[in-house]
Amino acid sequence: MSLPDAETVAQHKTAASQWFEALRTRICAEFEAIEDSLATGPHQDMEPGRFSRKAWDRPAVNGDASSGSGGGGVMATMRGRVFEKVGVNVSTVHGQFSDQFRGQIPGTEDDASFWASGVSLVAHMRNPHAPAVHMNTRHIVTGQAWFGGGADLTPMFPENHADDAASFHAALQSACDSADPSYYPRFKDWCDEYFYLPHRDEPRGMGGIFYDKLDTGDWDTDFAFTKSVGEAFLDIYPRIIRSRMDQPWTDADREGQLIKRGRYVEFNLLHDRGTKFGLMTGGNTEAILMSMPPEAKWP
Amino acid sequence: MSLPDAETVAQHKTAASQWFEALRTRICAEFEAIEDSLATGPHQDMEPGRFSRKAWDRPAVNGDASSGSGGGGVMATMRGRVFEKVGVNVSTVHGQFSDQFRGQIPGTEDDASFWASGVSLVAHMRNPHAPAVHMNTRHIVTGQAWFGGGADLTPMFPENHADDAASFHAALQSACDSADPSYYPRFKDWCDEYFYLPHRDEPRGMGGIFYDKLDTGDWDTDFAFTKSVGEAFLDIYPRIIRSRMDQPWTDADREGQLIKRGRYVEFNLLHDRGTKFGLMTGGNTEAILMSMPPEAKWP
Repeated sequence: MSLPDAETVAQHKTAASQWFEALRTRICAEFEAIEDSLATGPHQDMEPGRFSRKAWDRPAVNGDASSGSGGGGVMATMRGRVFEKVGVNVSTVHGQFSDQFRGQIPGTEDDASFWASGVSLVAHMRNPHAPAVHMNTRHIVTGQAWFGGGADLTPMFPENHADDAASFHAALQSACDSADPSYYPRFKDWCDEYFYLPHRDEPRGMGGIFYDKLDTGDWDTDFAFTKSVGEAFLDIYPRIIRSRMDQPWTDADREGQLIKRGRYVEFNLLHDRGTKFGLMTGGNTEAILMSMPPEAKWP
Repeated sequence: MSLPDAETVAQHKTAASQWFEALRTRICAEFEAIEDSLATGPHQDMEPGRFSRKAWDRPAVNGDASSGSGGGGVMATMRGRVFEKVGVNVSTVHGQFSDQFRGQIPGTEDDASFWASGVSLVAHMRNPHAPAVHMNTRHIVTGQAWFGGGADLTPMFPENHADDAASFHAALQSACDSADPSYYPRFKDWCDEYFYLPHRDEPRGMGGIFYDKLDTGDWDTDFAFTKSVGEAFLDIYPRIIRSRMDQPWTDADREGQLIKRGRYVEFNLLHDRGTKFGLMTGGNTEAILMSMPPEAKWP
């Protein structure tokens, strides 16, 4: 769809970026509350973790400030006693797509300009029975405007997590169904297809939803859906973690966790389009690779 | 250059693949001797490591045996008390390049057939002061025939290893100079350029040599050079390890080692052409990812 008038586009950009920042703040607060509530296990004597925030500016591409690139983000990271490592990035950037990428991006036929804002999160937990998670929602504006994102759950031992997967899927389905009953089956399949390691012939995790280039023509509805995805994540993932964080584990469980995390690394570096796109276009390496697990094994 | 007569090509293939296997056997014996000689440090009470070998067949592409693919390899791996994880793979495979890759490969204009044999090695050491290493030499035959390979050293703390780098480089220079005085400066630069992480703006290690598509028109000379590279590696790397394996280390050294290994993972999965090519063409995942470190950190 073509864009509405410039004032409306500006209002949309502001509303979306403010939402992503507000969601980030609520997620961080909830994760810190989880840190406070740990009362058992080998890490209970550690100080509860707290997020630290680091702002970064998007550098001018190839040192050329005239390329019109700009914006930046805030990387919030926490190394805690429940969350071994979690990063929650918000970024709002603008610039010009290079010719290399322009052809792949809708709405850049007449103008290579883009604006993008989003929130992106990856959490790696200490307890091997607490699933890792990824969540990202974003709004992109070129000559068109659309939303994208998703969330997917990665238990270390999938065979023991049918219940977690079911509740995670149910929360996301509820968010999808509130917008359009066709969304959930499509976006669930899209997630299963995307988060897959062909060289291992195995899925990265237990799925969730993935969507991109969502533009029904009704911006308010699409934005509301993207907010619902964020709300669903903020509701269900903390509940899963609270139900798992006190479960005892063995050294063998930890070993299995570190090996599963190796698969996560393989996916992120071999296949994840956001990671590859970000690194190849001079994005903030530290923020992009915040998704890497704190420790991984290939024994 | 075009190929000689079929009988000569067959003799070349046999000579090259036998050399790679013989080199593998000598390297494994030398590494096991190093395992035997450890007499200090926190792992001295472990059993000396021994290689185990696992043969694998190259599967028919897409299950289609008529594609003419075939061959296989032997993966030799050791988890020892000096070598935390080392893999030495030999493989001799043949088949047809897919259209996707054919255009990038010399000598496939009239015929997509290829034959390839080589030895490939990556070693990750327990002692953080003992450099990791990679070595690979190979012979490829399409409508043309050429050699390629190289070796590069990755100390965990480059600032402390000027001496190791100097002796490693000297050994490889000697191998190069025995063939052609122009080789070393070219192949050293090629290595520095290739083993580089642009997103980190840092080299993977301290260099060595890298060469590809070496076909001077004198097969015997090119083969002799490739053998010299193998001999140089077998001479210098064990000497470096023997000089470092007894050096005491701290927990902070180990932590630094695990972080440096994370960079190794990033290079292998984001940039290494052999890894990507192998995984995308249905190669043996276990053998290809044998290069991954046993443990790595992104704290």
